[in-house]
Amino acid sequence: MEKIKRSERLGAMARILTESPNRIHTLGEFCELFGAAKSTVSEDIDLIDHSFAQFDLGCVETLAGAAGGVRYRPVPSPARVKRVLSELSERLQEPGRMLPGGFLYTSDVTSDARTAQALGEILAAAYYEKQPDLVLTMETKGIPIALMTARALDVPLVIARRDSRAYEGSAVKINYIAGGGNERIETMALARRAVKAGQRALIVDDFMKGGGTLQGMVDMMREFQAEVVGVCVMISTAQPEEKRVQGARSLLVLDGFDRANGRANVRPAEEYR
Amino acid sequence: MEKIKRSERLGAMARILTESPNRIHTLGEFCELFGAAKSTVSEDIDLIDHSFAQFDLGCVETLAGAAGGVRYRPVPSPARVKRVLSELSERLQEPGRMLPGGFLYTSDVTSDARTAQALGEILAAAYYEKQPDLVLTMETKGIPIALMTARALDVPLVIARRDSRAYEGSAVKINYIAGGGNERIETMALARRAVKAGQRALIVDDFMKGGGTLQGMVDMMREFQAEVVGVCVMISTAQPEEKRVQGARSLLVLDGFDRANGRANVRPAEEYR
Repeated sequence: MEKIKRSERLGAMARILTESPNRIHTLGEFCELFGAAKSTVSEDIDLIDHSFAQFDLGCVETLAGAAGGVRYRPVPSPARVKRVLSELSERLQEPGRMLPGGFLYTSDVTSDARTAQALGEILAAAYYEKQPDLVLTMETKGIPIALMTARALDVPLVIARRDSRAYEGSAVKINYIAGGGNERIETMALARRAVKAGQRALIVDDFMKGGGTLQGMVDMMREFQAEVVGVCVMISTAQPEEKRVQGARSLLVLDGFDRANGRANVRPAEEYR
Repeated sequence: MEKIKRSERLGAMARILTESPNRIHTLGEFCELFGAAKSTVSEDIDLIDHSFAQFDLGCVETLAGAAGGVRYRPVPSPARVKRVLSELSERLQEPGRMLPGGFLYTSDVTSDARTAQALGEILAAAYYEKQPDLVLTMETKGIPIALMTARALDVPLVIARRDSRAYEGSAVKINYIAGGGNERIETMALARRAVKAGQRALIVDDFMKGGGTLQGMVDMMREFQAEVVGVCVMISTAQPEEKRVQGARSLLVLDGFDRANGRANVRPAEEYR
């Protein structure tokens, strides 16, 4: 095999590590790919880690032992988190986002891949230690953020549906109370094969008002005998203060609307200010 | 500013380029970040491009002129495309994926972030030259692949809904004919502000049987006076041969089911074999 120089290895190695977040690569994998010794690959990894740390691009961790190797986690610094959430708050405060009925137009933001990835990486960073086996969301608007959270954690995404479709096979259906204000009973369905008993689920959605949909997802996981290791949303309303679901993490808070100019009052949640 | 060595720049630069596919970064941006001269940054970029090319990790392009700079496109080689699609075909042929009614269970595949990213990059690669302004999909199962296609193209994702929800604001609603076999009229809604007249849309979905939903999306774009630059899906059925939508690109073909053992017959489409 042709000898590959360090300056040629570093870019490729950075790309391989970052395109599979939270996945452990053995040093042997890189040794073989580059025809390099383990000590050389180790030095490369230190250089990449140093470079990422210096420019706030996440962290490269070396794990010792039999199951050891190297993995990349796109953990953003507190300063980066603060900047992302404050820019997002600004964006959601643009005039014209107030819809009839006191709703906030967020579809352009929730389905933007870069935003979804930034938010997914912020959320994932808070749950690496809890080692979730899957991310659960409910269709539709939360899917991009939930997908990017699952990507950063390297676990599958599971999507609950409003009704069980023929092409999902046998499904578990539950009812839940939706709507903060005008309450109603809704149905949520999830393919039986999507979750196994004993698995650890991280619940991710875009929006929380009363918290009924999120509590529905918690109830759904109970039906599957799965454990919920966290519940989180992009944005939650300040009112009602009491939510149906307990202990949810929210990145942003919607305090209400300035009805005179149609602007929403949005701010990063307390812990991210 | 502290002098940063090449070995420290390369990892960071690879990460910055690859995390924003198809976005043009000026050389000045990197010069400032690293405190390096343009000629030095140019050499770095050549090294990264060479490294990516050697290991089939996409391409880094330098654009001359006033709007010039450098951009990364995650274009996979034909060999990589072939491998991804043949592995995916294998996976979809696992026993137990045949559902009552002749449906194929694909939800675990369509919502897997790594698979969605690989497929999104394959699809995007075919449309860079058409310069789409947005990717359009219809909820729910196509969202992850459409999102990853939009990510690779650096354009917004727009999601059509089954019904217009209060929190989407004013919407355009159309009827379309769904279902290959038992045909029925369904409704599709899209927020009025989501697409502007004259924009170029790439339509992406997970599955095509009769092609009615895809044709519905084409009709929807006509309502918005937007141009459709392509229609593509992850998998289409071999039957019916005649689809309601014209000229759709499909990555995989479902030839049918081997009913004795419940296995689907899935293969990469002709042009990817």
